[in-house]
Amino acid sequence: MSEPIYVVGHQQPDTDTICSAIAYARLKKKQGADVVPARAGPLNPETQFVVDRWDVEVPARLDDAAGEQLILVDHNEYSQTVAGAEKAEIVEIIDHHRLGGIETSEPILFRNEPVGSTATILTQLFDDANETITTQTAGLLLSGILSDTVVLRSPTTTDRDRTVAGRLADIAGVDYEAYGTDLLSQKSKIGEKSPREMVLSDFKEFDFDGQHVGIGQIETVEPSAVLDQQEAVVEAMNEVVTERDNAVFLLLVTDLLEEDSTALVAGPEIELVETGLDTTFTDHESFLPGVMSRKKQVVPLLEDAFGAHSA
Amino acid sequence: MSEPIYVVGHQQPDTDTICSAIAYARLKKKQGADVVPARAGPLNPETQFVVDRWDVEVPARLDDAAGEQLILVDHNEYSQTVAGAEKAEIVEIIDHHRLGGIETSEPILFRNEPVGSTATILTQLFDDANETITTQTAGLLLSGILSDTVVLRSPTTTDRDRTVAGRLADIAGVDYEAYGTDLLSQKSKIGEKSPREMVLSDFKEFDFDGQHVGIGQIETVEPSAVLDQQEAVVEAMNEVVTERDNAVFLLLVTDLLEEDSTALVAGPEIELVETGLDTTFTDHESFLPGVMSRKKQVVPLLEDAFGAHSA
Repeated sequence: MSEPIYVVGHQQPDTDTICSAIAYARLKKKQGADVVPARAGPLNPETQFVVDRWDVEVPARLDDAAGEQLILVDHNEYSQTVAGAEKAEIVEIIDHHRLGGIETSEPILFRNEPVGSTATILTQLFDDANETITTQTAGLLLSGILSDTVVLRSPTTTDRDRTVAGRLADIAGVDYEAYGTDLLSQKSKIGEKSPREMVLSDFKEFDFDGQHVGIGQIETVEPSAVLDQQEAVVEAMNEVVTERDNAVFLLLVTDLLEEDSTALVAGPEIELVETGLDTTFTDHESFLPGVMSRKKQVVPLLEDAFGAHSA
Repeated sequence: MSEPIYVVGHQQPDTDTICSAIAYARLKKKQGADVVPARAGPLNPETQFVVDRWDVEVPARLDDAAGEQLILVDHNEYSQTVAGAEKAEIVEIIDHHRLGGIETSEPILFRNEPVGSTATILTQLFDDANETITTQTAGLLLSGILSDTVVLRSPTTTDRDRTVAGRLADIAGVDYEAYGTDLLSQKSKIGEKSPREMVLSDFKEFDFDGQHVGIGQIETVEPSAVLDQQEAVVEAMNEVVTERDNAVFLLLVTDLLEEDSTALVAGPEIELVETGLDTTFTDHESFLPGVMSRKKQVVPLLEDAFGAHSA
């Protein structure tokens, strides 16, 4: 049994997922465990920028987790895990999302906290273990926080995230506002992608009372790069709905400067989304003032709408 | 919205569940939250001894949690929660058991650690918050640890439990071995109960692949007090099986001095229990050498047996 334990984040990995996997593997290794970071999919341009900036090796891709031991970071539901995770042994979970219903046979460490990023919790775990955070690890953790909280502007941001970000910026030797602006500008490279790449770039699937609901998000300083080709984008969304048998696919195009979102929708259950979000879609499109957080401002409302429907 | 948040442990409350509810409510109150401890059922004699010994008010019974805000301690599955919990809002969970599949809409604090008692984790939470642990609170937390770990002898005991118990005993001003012996002698009062009270005194129900499996445990220094009236005990178990539509009801009669268990069984699925535990029941009874922990040495094996059966 000399197989390592893999630390792995969610599908369509983002910066918090990748940086958290790398940082937590480092902490566990310092504590003597045979742990390696892994990823469940390709890096997005922002995350590629981060690993280049901090000169970090990209974690190997884990194609099939069946039979392995896994530490899940930045997610805790099977609909978002790496392939084969249902046949793996989950030995720890560190996350900051809703509880997704995973069951285990044995008691395991599960630390879920309502903060802005998994990186915020990992910083605490380094402190709890009295382990020093290196410049490079601080750079990674800071990137996770700034990416997930839109440079501390998202409504998911807590005072702890702000305090931790300030401290990590000091260790990493960067100005977090300036570094955060660099990160955001990477997110805006969305315009270089094909419509299909766009809609899948940060796609999460939820199981709401037995129905598969896709909720994607594109965070950008140039929403027009997506919305100007609305027809092609909705066509790509319809393809995804068919392939994944989704009840509905909602795509949030979030304007990072104006701090609101335009939603696009595809799939049969559009009316339930309209009920849940208290909005009306015209030509598959709806404006959602003030909405920046999928997790906090969209997922609970849609879960309620789909739950009430089936009750 | 001036309703308090209730901190509540599992049904058929034991000492760790009650003491953890009281201690965590105290910590949350110190931090300014409107939180009160509650219980999901009557106190057992050991827990009554503890609240008398430390002169603590018994938490009020919560008969229906529907519509309330709940903090769950010492459990994290709906089959073990207070009545109405499925219609309550779960706002935090502190536990040390297997992950039981609870889902939430919003991100919440869920701290599950593989240690011997919930009280061990709560001691850490007092430390994390820089809050002083009073003599009385130390007495309660120590009771939770010693009860759940059979005075640090159960295989679930970790080095952390040992360290924390030593520290709490110092604060509480007791010798933990002597105090632990007092606790164990309370557990042995099982002989004063009716067969039905015996088999329900520490009864937990699990959902294994859709089947309801009851697993009870009687920890005693006098197993003969139970086993000498085996026929009446099995009859009481059969009643429970019928009332709760259980696939099987396994009762562990754990000898605290010899550190092993005699199992009694009732219900239709006895063969699956024999497969899972690799044993044979003769006249509803089987000896399980070295078995002291329901959680660690029985639940995972039965879960596997029932899962493999349905697959």
